[in-house]
Amino acid sequence: MGKITRFNENPILSGAVEYHNFVFTAGMTADDLSQDVTGQTRQVIAKLDEALEHFGTDKTRLMQAQIWLKDIRDRDAMNKVWVEWLGEHGRPARACVQANMADPRHLVEIMVTACR
Amino acid sequence: MGKITRFNENPILSGAVEYHNFVFTAGMTADDLSQDVTGQTRQVIAKLDEALEHFGTDKTRLMQAQIWLKDIRDRDAMNKVWVEWLGEHGRPARACVQANMADPRHLVEIMVTACR
Amino acid sequence: MGKITRFNENPILSGAVEYHNFVFTAGMTADDLSQDVTGQTRQVIAKLDEALEHFGTDKTRLMQAQIWLKDIRDRDAMNKVWVEWLGEHGRPARACVQANMADPRHLVEIMVTACR
Repeated sequence: MGKITRFNENPILSGAVEYHNFVFTAGMTADDLSQDVTGQTRQVIAKLDEALEHFGTDKTRLMQAQIWLKDIRDRDAMNKVWVEWLGEHGRPARACVQANMADPRHLVEIMVTACR
Repeated sequence: MGKITRFNENPILSGAVEYHNFVFTAGMTADDLSQDVTGQTRQVIAKLDEALEHFGTDKTRLMQAQIWLKDIRDRDAMNKVWVEWLGEHGRPARACVQANMADPRHLVEIMVTACR
Repeated sequence: MGKITRFNENPILSGAVEYHNFVFTAGMTADDLSQDVTGQTRQVIAKLDEALEHFGTDKTRLMQAQIWLKDIRDRDAMNKVWVEWLGEHGRPARACVQANMADPRHLVEIMVTACR
C-alpha cells in the first residue's frame, strides 16, 4: 500500500493529506473572524499556501477547488483576492456555492486538491 | 513533477484539469438561465461532455460527481436527465445537496472527477 | 485505460468507485430516518466501512471527506461519533457545511475519498 502523509492533524481532521503526489487539503477557514470576507479570504489563502508548501508544491499546481461563502453576494470580493493570488498561473477547476459553516462568523471556506 | 493540462481557462478557473489521467471538471452551470431545471441540466451535461472529450474520455469513465440544486425538490427532474445521459454505463459515486449558486437563476451545477 | 470498479450500483449512482487504488464513495445517508443525528451518523459510518472494506481498505486510509449537516449546530453531536470512529488513526482532510439533502429527514451525509 502506498504511503499516506498527514499534515497538521487534530482529533477531527488533517490540514492536508498527501498520497502518490496528490495533495488534499481540508476546508480552510480564517482564525480572526472579526475580519470581512476580503480579510478572511487572505487568511484562508495563507493556510493553503502553508499546507501546499509543506508537501513541496504550491498554488501553480492546483487541480480542483471548492469554495463556500456564507453569502454568495460576497463572491466578487472573494474573487478579487483569489485572482490576485493565482495571477497568471494555472487555475484549478472550481465550484463556489453558498453555505453556512461551522461558526456563524465564518464567511468563506476553501478546500483544494493539488499535485506535486 | 507530472504534467498538468488545463482546458477552457479564464482568470478565475479552468473548465477542466488533467493530471496522470485524472480529469477534474469545474462546477458547470447553464448559460441560458431562462430555462428550467431540465433545460439547464441538459446544458450542463453538454459542457461536461465537451470537457471530458477534450481529454479523450467520456461519461462512461466518471468516478465522482457533486450536484448542487437551488431547490432540492428539483432532484427528480434533474435525475431524469442524468439517468438518460448515463444510460447503462457505469455511474459515478455521487452527492447531491441544495445550495445557492453564483447567480440566483442558476438551478443546477455539476462537478465531476473522471479518468481516461 | 485503467480499470474502473464500481460497488453497489443503481441507475443513478455507485456506492463507491475504485481506480488505480483511489476509492471514491457516494455521499452516504442513513436508511432509518427516524433516528437523530447521532444514530444517522452511525448508520452512515457503517455504510462507509462496508464500501471501504469491499475495496480492501478501511478508515485508516481516508484522504478527504465532505460532510453535510441539515443543521450545522449538530456538528458537535456528529463529531462525537466521527472521533470515536477514527480513534487514533490518521484523519482525512475534511470540510463540513450545512445543506439540505435529498429528503428533509436526512440530518447528515458523508462522502470520502480513500486509497488502498
